[in-house]
Amino acid sequence: MNEPERSARLAGPVRVVGAGLLGASIGLALCAHGVDVILDDASPSALDLAIDYGAGRRAAVGDAPVLVVVCVPPDVTAPLIERELAAHPDAVVTDVASVKLEPFLALQRRGVDLTRYIGSHPLSGRERGGAISARADLFYGRPWVICRDAETPGWALGLVEDLALDLGSTPLEMTPEEHDRSVALVSHVPQVVASLLAARLIDAPEIAVALAGQGVRDTTRIASSDPSLWLQILRANAEPVVEVLRDLSRDLDTVVAALTSINSEGEATPGTRRAIADAIAAGNAGVARLPGKHGQNRRFVTLTVMVDDTPGALGRLLTELGEIGVNMEDLRLEHSPGAQIGFAEIAVVPEVKQRAIDDLVARGWRIAGL
Amino acid sequence: MNEPERSARLAGPVRVVGAGLLGASIGLALCAHGVDVILDDASPSALDLAIDYGAGRRAAVGDAPVLVVVCVPPDVTAPLIERELAAHPDAVVTDVASVKLEPFLALQRRGVDLTRYIGSHPLSGRERGGAISARADLFYGRPWVICRDAETPGWALGLVEDLALDLGSTPLEMTPEEHDRSVALVSHVPQVVASLLAARLIDAPEIAVALAGQGVRDTTRIASSDPSLWLQILRANAEPVVEVLRDLSRDLDTVVAALTSINSEGEATPGTRRAIADAIAAGNAGVARLPGKHGQNRRFVTLTVMVDDTPGALGRLLTELGEIGVNMEDLRLEHSPGAQIGFAEIAVVPEVKQRAIDDLVARGWRIAGL
Repeated sequence: MNEPERSARLAGPVRVVGAGLLGASIGLALCAHGVDVILDDASPSALDLAIDYGAGRRAAVGDAPVLVVVCVPPDVTAPLIERELAAHPDAVVTDVASVKLEPFLALQRRGVDLTRYIGSHPLSGRERGGAISARADLFYGRPWVICRDAETPGWALGLVEDLALDLGSTPLEMTPEEHDRSVALVSHVPQVVASLLAARLIDAPEIAVALAGQGVRDTTRIASSDPSLWLQILRANAEPVVEVLRDLSRDLDTVVAALTSINSEGEATPGTRRAIADAIAAGNAGVARLPGKHGQNRRFVTLTVMVDDTPGALGRLLTELGEIGVNMEDLRLEHSPGAQIGFAEIAVVPEVKQRAIDDLVARGWRIAGL
Repeated sequence: MNEPERSARLAGPVRVVGAGLLGASIGLALCAHGVDVILDDASPSALDLAIDYGAGRRAAVGDAPVLVVVCVPPDVTAPLIERELAAHPDAVVTDVASVKLEPFLALQRRGVDLTRYIGSHPLSGRERGGAISARADLFYGRPWVICRDAETPGWALGLVEDLALDLGSTPLEMTPEEHDRSVALVSHVPQVVASLLAARLIDAPEIAVALAGQGVRDTTRIASSDPSLWLQILRANAEPVVEVLRDLSRDLDTVVAALTSINSEGEATPGTRRAIADAIAAGNAGVARLPGKHGQNRRFVTLTVMVDDTPGALGRLLTELGEIGVNMEDLRLEHSPGAQIGFAEIAVVPEVKQRAIDDLVARGWRIAGL
């Protein structure tokens, strides 16, 4: 992708406390930009590993970090923020914990001056932890939530924004409450649901497991996450999570009641049929709101172009799209080893669809469904 | 796609009734093996599309199929099996419906002689239907359940096994009851859960949806499935599905009760903490029972290339892949709105992966995760 080596926005040294997946990934990315990264971890072996990996250097006497990034599990985030604020009185302190309100309130209760603290949360992660899974590109293209408050000085906010931008993320300002309710919905509840669904497989007969396909794999993939980390997250964000789980439980009861009313010959009342179909249709509407890869973003429309199944044919199509100045927002390929032709489903903003079709047809491309 | 032309086990003509995703995919694959495929569909336009796509030919006077494969929605499967048994008295008739007991019992109740009928179910599918989504490799490496009974003649069973083997599937014998209980667990319940979870996103604030990551995408991907098809499936398999959903509902209530008992400072009793951690740990144990990681197509491996979000950048990548002689088997794009960068996940045969990486890196492309 020919990404030039950009110079970092952050100038001074950055201290990263916690050398796990997130801390080591931040260190790797900042080091790649030439930033002086000071790493620290309560575990000497975790620290050694991250340093060997190239994620930063050991602390030294006289270090004067401009920014401290606390990258430790939620349970110990608040005490470490307090410690770092005291130890580095000239630095801005941020953290990357996936819950924002509870540590903030805990620090307030302890009377800590939070002027130099700005909570943040990069929406990146993997189901595997540790420096060994770290990637400099972990944050590329992902949102980075920043929770400022009225007292946050602009220069301090700027430092955390620079961190996000240096790592290729998109900074997004939210209140801690907005953040916690949002991640309850799009991260914490999906984790609980995936775990509960996967747990049903424990006692499954061997022959049932043998029939597992991509659907159950996808729905349960994140069920391999770390229980002790998730206990901390769910504890700290219990109320917003419970709110969503209660709605989910009510919907589940509705489906169970409908299915229970079907007789042994598969006969169902119109009301029962509607309840079941409505539940699946509501899922269609919900998943369509997710941006990105599925190409179902409502901001975009799709056109489907037929493409010969030869190497380079798709490349030619996309090059020509570039030539006619059409920006492709998403792409899905449909093709089959047995077929002579494939379909490229291209998402574009609605305004350019007709022009794209006209120009492509003029260049000899065939549009499916016209 | 460099697929070697294998000779088919099936010799005589095969009649495929229903030219949707499964019927057209079966037709494509059999045609690629040189089998004479006779296609039929109640919709003339669906039939035309599948024939244009290369999935078979139109029926002709004097056709004498050895095997009829009924590939229609569950609701009309039983009547079409009955019709085909009568119309083709020398043929074996099978179907591919995802529920096996209910159509079998329906035919028995109607007094149909089922000696020449063998129910089957290929565990393949996509969240999108229609011939336009058909692929000859849809069944490759997947189980194909075959439900014989005591009266099934060996030669008839052999024909259905040959069909499965010709399509690259693994035949698996089960009773209809075993089959239905198994798919309730690994397919029907995950569908219901994904739909209910996705439905929670309908009223989500824009800002929450903006934080969505791979976890919620994966857990809700199949929520884009067709409501009318799933109403038919769930109706026909209500009892086994309800059994699993009830267990799931009980587990969900346990987690909700535990989370509710946590106070506003995040304090929890040991019993509460254990209940939450146990739920996540049970998910670990359940997901560990799933075989393979990328089951759907084990013939291919993927590499992920970073691509600038500019018109033509992806076209350049694919053109260069053509220049270095790497044949792309599949492509998925991952890209967040607002991001300067996207990821192109390219599937290739394992033998060329390292060379593709080396050549792309030499040309200045960046590979994610290296």
